[in-house]
Amino acid sequence: MEAITVSQYELVYNAFSFAIAVMGAATIFFFLGRSQVASAYRTALTITGLVTLIAAYHYLRIFNSWEASFTVSGGQVAASGVKFNDAYRYVDWLLTVPLLLIELILVMRLPRAETVAKATKLGLLAALMVVLGYPGEVSADPSTRWIWWALAMVPFILIVYDLFVGLSASISSQPAAARGLISSARWVTIISWCFYPVVFVFPMIGLTGGSATTAVQVGYTVADIVAKAGFGVLIFLIAARKSEAEGHV
Amino acid sequence: MEAITVSQYELVYNAFSFAIAVMGAATIFFFLGRSQVASAYRTALTITGLVTLIAAYHYLRIFNSWEASFTVSGGQVAASGVKFNDAYRYVDWLLTVPLLLIELILVMRLPRAETVAKATKLGLLAALMVVLGYPGEVSADPSTRWIWWALAMVPFILIVYDLFVGLSASISSQPAAARGLISSARWVTIISWCFYPVVFVFPMIGLTGGSATTAVQVGYTVADIVAKAGFGVLIFLIAARKSEAEGHV
Repeated sequence: MEAITVSQYELVYNAFSFAIAVMGAATIFFFLGRSQVASAYRTALTITGLVTLIAAYHYLRIFNSWEASFTVSGGQVAASGVKFNDAYRYVDWLLTVPLLLIELILVMRLPRAETVAKATKLGLLAALMVVLGYPGEVSADPSTRWIWWALAMVPFILIVYDLFVGLSASISSQPAAARGLISSARWVTIISWCFYPVVFVFPMIGLTGGSATTAVQVGYTVADIVAKAGFGVLIFLIAARKSEAEGHV
Repeated sequence: MEAITVSQYELVYNAFSFAIAVMGAATIFFFLGRSQVASAYRTALTITGLVTLIAAYHYLRIFNSWEASFTVSGGQVAASGVKFNDAYRYVDWLLTVPLLLIELILVMRLPRAETVAKATKLGLLAALMVVLGYPGEVSADPSTRWIWWALAMVPFILIVYDLFVGLSASISSQPAAARGLISSARWVTIISWCFYPVVFVFPMIGLTGGSATTAVQVGYTVADIVAKAGFGVLIFLIAARKSEAEGHV
């Protein structure tokens, strides 16, 4: 297996540190932003901030695990013997992915019964998707990985379908000032999420070693920042525009 | 005794880290949520947040104890010689279990004398239940374990009886919008609590080794998350619906 170089090691290291800073800062932005929106949207912003806070916590653990799993000296990187625990990502997603869908539903402020029904459905599908991905992720056997990948793709496709078809009617009932932003939030979700099942397949098609590891770790980090902090900014803007449209100062 | 495998070790490790994230995030959710409910319900949310904060603290200690009690290298897990301190759970329950019952009573907003009487009675029974379970938990002798298990079951059954019979009259006097949620909260308490006396019995019926340890630790963690964070979300929703029904904006 191709070894990891010092500059690859450092790139991943810096990407993780960057993620901690972005997620931490985003958390404070969303929590402070609660006071600027109508009370109907505050729970959406609370959850948006919790998603980035939970991500900050996990990136701190991932960063520490990355640092512990290598020793760098004399321009060489060697495995320290401590295993890099990538599974923190699954622990994170199990919690944050349902919450991301719930914040989108909450900011739409649908009738209560519809909010409960959609949040329950999408939240459970998202948790199921992550749970089905985990046994594949921790397996080294390509065929086992493919089976769990395929199983996890079922809820994934159901979620994407629901975001497109199920929410379309609800989006057209949103105030004009927020409609474009809600549509963007939906697109950001779908596009950033597509990154994950693709990266999952890397080791099954022979991409291993330092370059693949670096691509996977930096790629996951960028996808997480877009899907959590970037998406959260859209949620904040939607909440602010809707509050304004509804006469909240 | 069947040894613990690396994947079992990691599953427990990740479950504990997940619990830290859930409990920490839930705490902030409840504390921020205080501003969204009428002042009569704020103490209930304060206590709800304290329960998850205390749990987050104890899961941090449990996580560290788990990590310290094993050494993982070369795909093998070995006992490090440091004992895994499971008793943190009892320290946690002694504090959080009475508080959980008190938050349910507070959110019902009963007449003051009834609140004091019920909170005192259920709080003391819950503390007694945990205290009676402890000498059994730290004993390796099955008959000693059975005696304390049976003694702890007495307050357990009295609490369940009181939640069902004693609170029924009070529930029917709640606003219609909150009645279903209060009934759910009562059920979540009873169902999630039933897990504990069952798990306690595992070592007495010969379930030991890696698989049993993993099942017990992951099971306790799931039960704690449902009984504390999940239950807390119901308390928040009850407080929000009742505030709304009472004209709080």
